[in-house]
Amino acid sequence: MSKQQIGVIGLAVMGKNLALNIESKGYSVAVFNRSGDKTRELVTETIGKRLKGTYTIEEFLDSLEKPRKIVIMVKAGKPTDDVINSLLPHLEEGDILIDGGNAFFGDTRRRNKELSAKGFRFIGTGISGGEEGALKGPAIMPGGQEDAYRLVEPILTAISAKANGEPCCAYIGPDGAGHYVKMVHNGIEYGDMQLICEAYHLLKSTYNLTAQEFHEIFAEWNKGELDSYLIDITAQIFKKLDPETGELLVDMILDTAGQKGTGKWTSQSALDLGVPLSIITESVFARFISAMKEERVTASHILAGPPATTSPVEDKAAMIEAVRQALYASKICSYAQGFAQLRAASREYNWNLNYRTIAKIFRGGCIIRARFLQNIMEAYEKNPDLVNLLLDPYFQKITEKYQANWRKVAAFAVERGIPVPAFASALAYYDSYRTARLPANLLQAQRDFFGAHTFERIDKPGIFHADWSK
Amino acid sequence: MSKQQIGVIGLAVMGKNLALNIESKGYSVAVFNRSGDKTRELVTETIGKRLKGTYTIEEFLDSLEKPRKIVIMVKAGKPTDDVINSLLPHLEEGDILIDGGNAFFGDTRRRNKELSAKGFRFIGTGISGGEEGALKGPAIMPGGQEDAYRLVEPILTAISAKANGEPCCAYIGPDGAGHYVKMVHNGIEYGDMQLICEAYHLLKSTYNLTAQEFHEIFAEWNKGELDSYLIDITAQIFKKLDPETGELLVDMILDTAGQKGTGKWTSQSALDLGVPLSIITESVFARFISAMKEERVTASHILAGPPATTSPVEDKAAMIEAVRQALYASKICSYAQGFAQLRAASREYNWNLNYRTIAKIFRGGCIIRARFLQNIMEAYEKNPDLVNLLLDPYFQKITEKYQANWRKVAAFAVERGIPVPAFASALAYYDSYRTARLPANLLQAQRDFFGAHTFERIDKPGIFHADWSK
Repeated sequence: MSKQQIGVIGLAVMGKNLALNIESKGYSVAVFNRSGDKTRELVTETIGKRLKGTYTIEEFLDSLEKPRKIVIMVKAGKPTDDVINSLLPHLEEGDILIDGGNAFFGDTRRRNKELSAKGFRFIGTGISGGEEGALKGPAIMPGGQEDAYRLVEPILTAISAKANGEPCCAYIGPDGAGHYVKMVHNGIEYGDMQLICEAYHLLKSTYNLTAQEFHEIFAEWNKGELDSYLIDITAQIFKKLDPETGELLVDMILDTAGQKGTGKWTSQSALDLGVPLSIITESVFARFISAMKEERVTASHILAGPPATTSPVEDKAAMIEAVRQALYASKICSYAQGFAQLRAASREYNWNLNYRTIAKIFRGGCIIRARFLQNIMEAYEKNPDLVNLLLDPYFQKITEKYQANWRKVAAFAVERGIPVPAFASALAYYDSYRTARLPANLLQAQRDFFGAHTFERIDKPGIFHADWSK
Repeated sequence: MSKQQIGVIGLAVMGKNLALNIESKGYSVAVFNRSGDKTRELVTETIGKRLKGTYTIEEFLDSLEKPRKIVIMVKAGKPTDDVINSLLPHLEEGDILIDGGNAFFGDTRRRNKELSAKGFRFIGTGISGGEEGALKGPAIMPGGQEDAYRLVEPILTAISAKANGEPCCAYIGPDGAGHYVKMVHNGIEYGDMQLICEAYHLLKSTYNLTAQEFHEIFAEWNKGELDSYLIDITAQIFKKLDPETGELLVDMILDTAGQKGTGKWTSQSALDLGVPLSIITESVFARFISAMKEERVTASHILAGPPATTSPVEDKAAMIEAVRQALYASKICSYAQGFAQLRAASREYNWNLNYRTIAKIFRGGCIIRARFLQNIMEAYEKNPDLVNLLLDPYFQKITEKYQANWRKVAAFAVERGIPVPAFASALAYYDSYRTARLPANLLQAQRDFFGAHTFERIDKPGIFHADWSK
C-alpha cells in the first residue's frame, strides 16, 4: 500500500479546510483527530478523494511517507505541546512537524530548539485568511529549518493564495520568524480596523450618513489607493440587513470589541524591542475601552463633551475626501511602524527577514491584503535596507500631499469631541519622527536631577551628570 | 553582646543611604556587602553610629535579633535571587526578608511563594525618592505577609517621608502588591514627564521663550494645581547654566531619553489586564522615538511639515494658560488610567488594594508627589469603590472646565506639526470613555465577517453569527 504524502492532525474547521485544500492540489493526505468522529465524518463526506482517515497516532504515522510531513492544526498553547508530545516517541530523525496554529512566537522558538535537539525539524507557520482562506488559498508565513521548508514548499505554495500570479507563501526565516510575522500581520489588522472605525464614527457623528451612503463611500474608496479586503467587506457590511428587525445589521450589534490576544502580543513585543508601535497599541486599547460598555454609558451621563458648536461644518463631500486621506496617511504610518518592528525583531533574533517578500505574501489571501502592499513591496525592492517606509519616495509624497487634510480631520475630531486615538497617534508619530530635536533633553535633565541617570551632550561624546541643586 | 535590630545587605548608594536613614531613627543596623571594602568604608565614615559592619553572611545573620529582619538592596533580577539563595541555608523559621529593589512584581510573587513554602516571610517593597529620598525619607510601598509587615512597620514608617504629618508608608497587600504599585508609580512618572515635555515643546516651538520665561512659567504653575516635585525641578532646570559653555545646561543635553524598563512593564501589564493605558504607553513610545536620533535627523530633511502658517498665533499669556489646563487635564486622565490599572490588578491577583492609602503614600517622598494627590485621596475617601477618577466630582468639574483649552491646544499642535502624543491620547481617552456608543459595532461586524468571531446584539442577550456574504 502506498503511503500518504502529508498528514494533518486536528480536524476543526481550519484543519479540515486545509486538508481539503491540500488534497485538491493533487496530494494524498492522512488525517487524524483526537476524537475519531470528526475523522470518520470527514472521510465519509469526501469519498473518492485522497484523504485517508486514521484513528491512532501509530496508524497516522505509519501511513506517511518518510521523512514524515505533519501539519498540526490545533489550538495554540498547551494543546499544541500535547500533540507534539504524543508524536515524539514515534518520530524518526528528519521528520518534519509543521505548526499551523496561531502560536506565540516565543513558544515556536522553544519548540524548534527542543525538537531540533532531538533530530526533528519544526516549522511554525502563520496561516492567514480565516476558514475560507484555509480552504481556497491562505497567505502562508513559514519559519523554521530552511531545508525542511524546501521539502514542503511545493505543497505550501500550491495551496496558498496567489497575487498577480505569484504564491503568497515564502520562507520567512529561522525558528519563530513565521509566527512572528503572522503576529505583526494581526497587529496591523487591528490598526486597519480601528482606522476604518474612526472614519466611520467621525462621518456618522457629523453628518449622520445613511447605510447606503456608507456603502457607497467604502465601495468608492475600494476603487482607489485604499483598495483592500477590509474596506471591501466594510462596504458589504453596510448592505446587510438584520432578518429579524429589518434594520441594518451593523446597527444592531453591540459596540464591545473582542480580541484573541495577537494584537496585545504585538504591542508587548514592540515594548520589549524598543519600537514605537503607537497606532496598533492605541487600537488594542480602543478595543479594551469598547469592552467597558457599562462604564461608558455611566460616564456619558457625567462627563461633558464640548458645547454644540455653531461653526459651519465642512462641505460633506470635501470632508469625506479629507477623511479618506487621513485614513490612508494613518494606515501608511501604521505599516511603517509594523515593518520597523519586523526590522528590530530580525536584528534581535537573527532572522535576516526579507521585507519585500513579506509585503509580497501579504498581498493575497490574508486579512490585510491590499493594493498598497504592492507599493511597500516596491519600496523594499528599490531599497532592501529602507529604515522606515515613510522615507520611501512614494510614501513620502503621499503623506506630504495628504497631511493638510489629515491635520484638518484630527483637529476637527478633537474640537468636536469625537475620539480618534489611531488618527491622532499616527499624526503624533509622523510629527515626532520628522522632528530633529524633540524635548527629550528636558526629560533627560529631569532624570539626571532626581535619579542621577546621566545624560549625553550635543557638543561632545560621553556620559555626564550634573549637580542640579547648585 | 546585644544584637542589631535590622540588617541591610547591599551598600551601593541606595542601600547605604537607607541604612543611615534607619540608624538616624534610633535603630541599630547590621550592614553587609559582597565586597567588604564598602562595608569597611561605611563603618569608618560613621564611627559612633549604631552601624555594625559584618563581613560574612554568617556573621551578618548572627548579629541580628530574631526573627531576623533583613533588607536586601541589590540590583533587581538575578542579583536578588543570588542574595536570597546565599541566605537560605542560614535562615530560621519566621525570619523576614525585605526586598527594597525595583523588582518585577512577578518575581516578587514567585519569591514570596517559594520562601513562604520554606517557612520564611518575604516583603517586596517599592521605595521611591531616589538617593536623597532613601537618606531623608522615601515613599515606601511594602507588600507581602501582613504579620511580617507589622513587625517592621515601626522602622519603615519612621524612615519614610511625611506628608501633612502622616508617614508615606503603609501596608499595600499580599505578595507582589507593593512592587506592582511602585511599578505603576513609575509608569505614571513617565506620563507626567512626557506631558511636561510636550508643554515645553509646544511653547518653545511657537513662542521661542527664553529660559527665564520657562523658569517663571513652571515656578508659577508650581504655586497652583500643578504643584509637584516634577514641576518644581523643571523650574529649577531652567535656571541651571552649563559651567563649560555658559549656555543653559538643558539646551546642551542630547534629546535621547533613556529608560530602565518599569514604564514598559506597566504598559505590558496593562495589556495583559485589558486596561487602556494609552498615556503612559505613548510616553514610553515617545522615549523610544527620542532615542532614534539619527533616523529623526535624516527624516527631518525628507518629511515635510505643514506649511508655515500666516494665521495669527494666540496671545502668549492666553496660550500659556491653555497649555497649563491641557497639562492638568491630561495628567488627570493619566492618573485615572493608572488607578484603573491598579483596580484591575487588585482583582486579578486578589490584593484588595486600598486606593486612598496608595494616593496618600504618593503624596510625599516619591517622584510623583503632588498637591493633587490630596484630591485623589479624598475622591477615594468619599467613594472607596470609585470606578474611575474622572467620575469623581472634583475631577469631573476640572476636566469640564478645562476641556475647551485642552482641545484648543491639541488642535493647535496638530495643525502646526508639533507632536503631542500624550496630550492627544489623553483627550482621545476622555472622549472614548464618555462615549456611550463607540464604533466597535462595525469592528465586531468585520470580525464576524472574516473570522466568524460572533457578536452580541443591542436588543437581546446571546451570541450571534451572521452569514455576511448573503
